[in-house]
Amino acid sequence: MANINDNYTKLQAGYLFPEIGRRVSEFATLNPNADVIRLGIGDVTLPLAPAIVEAVQKATIELGSPEGFRGYGPEQGYDFLLNAISENDYKNRNIKIEPEEIFVSDGSKQDSGNIQEIFDANCKICVTDPVYPVYVDTNVMAGRSGPSDSLGRYENITYLSATEENNFSPLPPNERADLAYLCSPNNPTGAVMDHAALEAWVKWAISNEAVLIFDAAYDAFITDPSLPRSIFEIEGARECAIEMRSFSKRSGFTGLRCAYTAIPKEVFGSRLDGSKVALGDLWSRRHSTKFNSVPYIIQRAAEATFSKTGQKQTRDQVKYYMENARILREGLSNAGFGIFGGVHAPYIWMQTPEGLSSWDFFDRLLNQTHVVGTPGAGFGSSGEGYLRLSAFNSRDNVNEAVSRIENNF
Amino acid sequence: MANINDNYTKLQAGYLFPEIGRRVSEFATLNPNADVIRLGIGDVTLPLAPAIVEAVQKATIELGSPEGFRGYGPEQGYDFLLNAISENDYKNRNIKIEPEEIFVSDGSKQDSGNIQEIFDANCKICVTDPVYPVYVDTNVMAGRSGPSDSLGRYENITYLSATEENNFSPLPPNERADLAYLCSPNNPTGAVMDHAALEAWVKWAISNEAVLIFDAAYDAFITDPSLPRSIFEIEGARECAIEMRSFSKRSGFTGLRCAYTAIPKEVFGSRLDGSKVALGDLWSRRHSTKFNSVPYIIQRAAEATFSKTGQKQTRDQVKYYMENARILREGLSNAGFGIFGGVHAPYIWMQTPEGLSSWDFFDRLLNQTHVVGTPGAGFGSSGEGYLRLSAFNSRDNVNEAVSRIENNF
Repeated sequence: MANINDNYTKLQAGYLFPEIGRRVSEFATLNPNADVIRLGIGDVTLPLAPAIVEAVQKATIELGSPEGFRGYGPEQGYDFLLNAISENDYKNRNIKIEPEEIFVSDGSKQDSGNIQEIFDANCKICVTDPVYPVYVDTNVMAGRSGPSDSLGRYENITYLSATEENNFSPLPPNERADLAYLCSPNNPTGAVMDHAALEAWVKWAISNEAVLIFDAAYDAFITDPSLPRSIFEIEGARECAIEMRSFSKRSGFTGLRCAYTAIPKEVFGSRLDGSKVALGDLWSRRHSTKFNSVPYIIQRAAEATFSKTGQKQTRDQVKYYMENARILREGLSNAGFGIFGGVHAPYIWMQTPEGLSSWDFFDRLLNQTHVVGTPGAGFGSSGEGYLRLSAFNSRDNVNEAVSRIENNF
Repeated sequence: MANINDNYTKLQAGYLFPEIGRRVSEFATLNPNADVIRLGIGDVTLPLAPAIVEAVQKATIELGSPEGFRGYGPEQGYDFLLNAISENDYKNRNIKIEPEEIFVSDGSKQDSGNIQEIFDANCKICVTDPVYPVYVDTNVMAGRSGPSDSLGRYENITYLSATEENNFSPLPPNERADLAYLCSPNNPTGAVMDHAALEAWVKWAISNEAVLIFDAAYDAFITDPSLPRSIFEIEGARECAIEMRSFSKRSGFTGLRCAYTAIPKEVFGSRLDGSKVALGDLWSRRHSTKFNSVPYIIQRAAEATFSKTGQKQTRDQVKYYMENARILREGLSNAGFGIFGGVHAPYIWMQTPEGLSSWDFFDRLLNQTHVVGTPGAGFGSSGEGYLRLSAFNSRDNVNEAVSRIENNF
């Protein structure tokens, strides 16, 4: 029988969200009349902005005509989108990222999961804890870890605890690593890294010859314009960082699928023989061999988010979610909970009361208030004692959730 | 500096299609008035069928409304599409593939490139030669080969030559392998495997405990209804085969991106400890960790290809391309060329005249007739002496290409 990739055996069974789904559906079966409010999974809820709908319609009609039909697209993305990204996300903010340094993809989950493939199997990985599970799982699958311990931490991966003491923004480690994954604004803690924090990481990466994988999927939720939205606002980052951004949350694209990765020409890795190789060239080889471009109609939709109308409409959606975040934050804070995040991110990181474990609190919240959160422990051992609440929901549901929690705790 | 995946260094530089692009654009610069006819890349040319355009329009309007909005889709695909595939591609042909054995993806290129990830790094790979380069390159990247030799063949990969003598359909090897990649109807040779050929492979796979990766991306181009369209028409295949199919060529989806992989519950691999694991479960874990579903509007488009109107419209497109194939086949055959394929596949496998190498013939064809083909050698050393011509073009261009070649050779 063909041998399987035995690293899969190391993966911890029961991924977080299926387990939540199981508990919620069990509860719903026992309580068929309960009005369950789901603040668990971080999925947008507002309808697609009209400018996006219009762009898809127009592009689809184009494809239905002999003159307008297009088949395979350029693997890195159409020029119209590469140019729009370079212009709007970078040059308008005085950041130098050229269109040819941008790779359009079908999601930051994919990009942050696939990027490790261009690195050596023995590369040392560093992550924060709690962490978006994809960074860790894809490295485990690729054999960069040993088995997991009783806390769920994998051997040979460096975990940096994000705690109240360090404002949920850990400093770089004292040891070397080849790759460090950073996410700001952070999923799940909702914390944001300021210039000083990013500068410390860039300095560490340069002196350790490490590569930073910077996931900025939530950049649009930063409300303070002085905070960095891109790692490339930091001097030196062009020599050590790869950045991922997504249209999923900022433009309601979770069901349309479009994102991108930016790799400056100055980021290099080392071959076995010691020679240097541009990581962008390697990523391009991977991208053109294992991927086949984002649908044309989706790329036109992404382009439309940069039009004047598209920007206004999608920014209004972000504002709507951030007003939800404010209501959750202030309401639960007034009710006496320890509340973090939710200022520059659509996630609230809520301390469990009375020393409850995060799964116990999840169960109590579900049973007493019919509100679904995400147990912090599901994101790593340092998430124990916390629950993540998402601001992606209707205003009515958010108000109702706050009032139920206030009345029950 | 972080070490890179050094297996990338083994990959042969200059992927086939970029090199063709370079030569064509050099020619076009020197001959700005030449009317170049591109029969090189296998990309569809007819506009999207009206039923598909309509389905995308309708689904997009749904997403633009509060009641109809959907964010993240189920990772394996929406039930409406899984059911439509199971019903139309399998049950209607008396093949048992259940919806839960189907995984919807954004392309067979991706699926056939990613499938190797669930297998051990030491698995032995077997391919036919010539071969779709993605099967080989992704295994090289994953470290399953040594360096390539002067013929471009990688050490530790078993190559089976597809030649005129074996009807371009090699028998299974006499040695063991863990994975064998088969493609029928074949890209690039246009050959098709009959029941006997597939039966031989299934028998080999079962007795060698190997897994067949069966790429049926061109199934719709089979014109003889008695030929197998799915490996699962063969007894025993449910225990040893994984099948990939795509909407790209059969429904004009190269720019929309939708495909699927079917993995029967009875296909297993072996863990290091000798225990068995269902390959479908492993693929599901990979799919949910490194992929995030196909856009809802694209899945609705794929569903529409199974409607009565959708089937009619897309079958008419296939017929149009196959009439092109007939014109190429008969015209070039009458002109004295050795011609293969093109009966159950949109590809013509054309022998080069006068013992020319395939790149030399490519250059002569381009210079003398302004017709672009794909040099067979680009698909492997056994493709030397052949050129692939694609039937994906307008009728006028196909007629013109035939007449230019007739008049110049």
